[in-house]
Amino acid sequence: MINFSINKNFFLHALNATKRAISNKNAIPILSSIKIEISNSGITLTGSNGQISIENFIATNNENAGLLVTETGSILLEANFFINVVSSLPDISLDFKEIEHHQVLLTSGKSEITLKGKDIEQYPRLQEVSTSNPLIFDTKLLKTLISETAFAASTQESRPILTGVHLVLTDYQNFKAVATDSHRMSQRQVKLDNSNSGDNFDVVLPSRSLRELSAVFTDDIETVEIFLSNSQVLFRSENLSFYARMLEGAYPDTDRLLVNDFETEILFDTNNLRSAMERAHLISNATQNGTVKLEIINQAVSAHVNSPEVGKVNEEIDTLEASGSDLTISFNPTYLIEALKALKSKTVRIRFISAIRPFTLTPGDDNENFIQLITPVRTN
Amino acid sequence: MINFSINKNFFLHALNATKRAISNKNAIPILSSIKIEISNSGITLTGSNGQISIENFIATNNENAGLLVTETGSILLEANFFINVVSSLPDISLDFKEIEHHQVLLTSGKSEITLKGKDIEQYPRLQEVSTSNPLIFDTKLLKTLISETAFAASTQESRPILTGVHLVLTDYQNFKAVATDSHRMSQRQVKLDNSNSGDNFDVVLPSRSLRELSAVFTDDIETVEIFLSNSQVLFRSENLSFYARMLEGAYPDTDRLLVNDFETEILFDTNNLRSAMERAHLISNATQNGTVKLEIINQAVSAHVNSPEVGKVNEEIDTLEASGSDLTISFNPTYLIEALKALKSKTVRIRFISAIRPFTLTPGDDNENFIQLITPVRTN
Repeated sequence: MINFSINKNFFLHALNATKRAISNKNAIPILSSIKIEISNSGITLTGSNGQISIENFIATNNENAGLLVTETGSILLEANFFINVVSSLPDISLDFKEIEHHQVLLTSGKSEITLKGKDIEQYPRLQEVSTSNPLIFDTKLLKTLISETAFAASTQESRPILTGVHLVLTDYQNFKAVATDSHRMSQRQVKLDNSNSGDNFDVVLPSRSLRELSAVFTDDIETVEIFLSNSQVLFRSENLSFYARMLEGAYPDTDRLLVNDFETEILFDTNNLRSAMERAHLISNATQNGTVKLEIINQAVSAHVNSPEVGKVNEEIDTLEASGSDLTISFNPTYLIEALKALKSKTVRIRFISAIRPFTLTPGDDNENFIQLITPVRTN
Repeated sequence: MINFSINKNFFLHALNATKRAISNKNAIPILSSIKIEISNSGITLTGSNGQISIENFIATNNENAGLLVTETGSILLEANFFINVVSSLPDISLDFKEIEHHQVLLTSGKSEITLKGKDIEQYPRLQEVSTSNPLIFDTKLLKTLISETAFAASTQESRPILTGVHLVLTDYQNFKAVATDSHRMSQRQVKLDNSNSGDNFDVVLPSRSLRELSAVFTDDIETVEIFLSNSQVLFRSENLSFYARMLEGAYPDTDRLLVNDFETEILFDTNNLRSAMERAHLISNATQNGTVKLEIINQAVSAHVNSPEVGKVNEEIDTLEASGSDLTISFNPTYLIEALKALKSKTVRIRFISAIRPFTLTPGDDNENFIQLITPVRTN
């Protein structure tokens, strides 16, 4: 029969991190629970929605946790409700005691709250991932790669593989992340320190799982170990294990989309181009095809939208450098806005081939590691 | 044909204040427009949802506005869309020019945006309110009165009069605001400075309109003038006119609910009682009648909730003073939580008559001007 006491805020922080894997709208009702397992070495909290699973370990010897385990055991509690109750407790610490089978008494200050739980036998077992030969990744770099690519994945289930981000490690050091929804693509490459690299791999993980990963691994966690099984990737730090189920199927060959020739090349101020596109988007949103027309004439760039119902936008866009042929090209400004948001650099280089071929965006100061591609829309 | 230029941020601020009266889900589609009228003395912006109307005046001689009127005129523009467009403009000022009938060209920096508008003849006329003999109110006091009472009004349309706040001025100086949803009541009285008072009145205004009023009259506006017509109340500051339509019908006599006798009196720390009730609410929410039971035995207070499905709460609540008979009383903790939120004082005095009679709350340091009442729930 479980019996432990713990610092309330430390416990709450771990509960909230675990809750990110828990959805109330799951087809499997038991997955709305959080699994709490107490051993003499500490507490393991587990949450899962079937796609991702999070295990959070609070060690008895972690001084900040103020954890004192008197008796071990395990229980399932309704996650949202339990977390709300813990968060409402009056004192800085709480006592957690199983008073009869699957019934828990929380005591904090003068408050006593009894909660009904369930047997952990009802909870699905997590598939194990063997933890040998990790790939070690800098947490900030991993989160940057995710923020630079995951947004470009598809949100539609018509081609499920496109809802993922393609992650590839070759030569034990060349890492590539790429996502596309077939209208735009974003690819970031990075050369890893050879000594830290695990086995080569080629997997597709749902972009949504990767965004949760970014939220769960906070910036105070310096590195993340990555392990692979046949169906899952495990991301692990000292106390946190994050399991993401892979998407099945072949990812399209995106390398063939990247060609080196271009006819027109412009360097823009990123914010300047972005706010011009945001204005264009306000009007294009009201048009049938939702596009903005970019005109490049004698290296001068202007943007145009015309909605018969709402109005029109015409604007000149300043350039920092411009070279090559004249061009008129139409595209959905939302794709360009999102591409510019993903860029951290002050300037952006855009290279056009023709009105009907995709154009590329690269940071003004870097041509190799981060490239995005947007497909134009044919008008009339 | 309209022609003016103005500081973008100043214009945006006035547009956003006016927009608070504008709803996109109005049964009268033209009310999703903002009316813009330009005279040589300034610009009047008007928005309305039928219940409230806001007129915002930007004077030509207001130095912060940077307003230069070249030609006068008037137009209706789709409010949300127009405000989004203005907010996206690149420069600190904008030029607003009517280029052909009901078509406007906005120019800012290198950006040119054309918008389609409508004739103001399509916009309903606001009923006028005669502006003589104002009641002058301190803005902060008015907003305090609203925050202390409006929450207690009903949100259900079954008795429309109870969705309002009853506002009464007697003897040209005694002001009373009261709201009740028949389960709880909140009443605040204040004695106004005699020299500033207008005519006596007795009106009911929708609590929702009063909450919008609180949002529109920002803290930098020191006083508000109040004028009444048969169907509307006009709240006016230098540049802002806020019209609120009255609710029709007789407001129930709430004075008879306030009696002076009581059997038990307890002084609580407000935050302490509130957090105990918030814990109780987490569990009571899962019970059938949604109540918490308060037990007073020998001046010691404890709270109890028992939900067969979810669990239970038992807690002792510290008191600062306690006197009178023992009592057991059940009520919806939400009402007590909201009542305590409305109190600004650190302590709260609660007076009980019996388990089946409403109990009163007053600030610990004030017994006369602010009183709330909560009706208990009979539990067998």
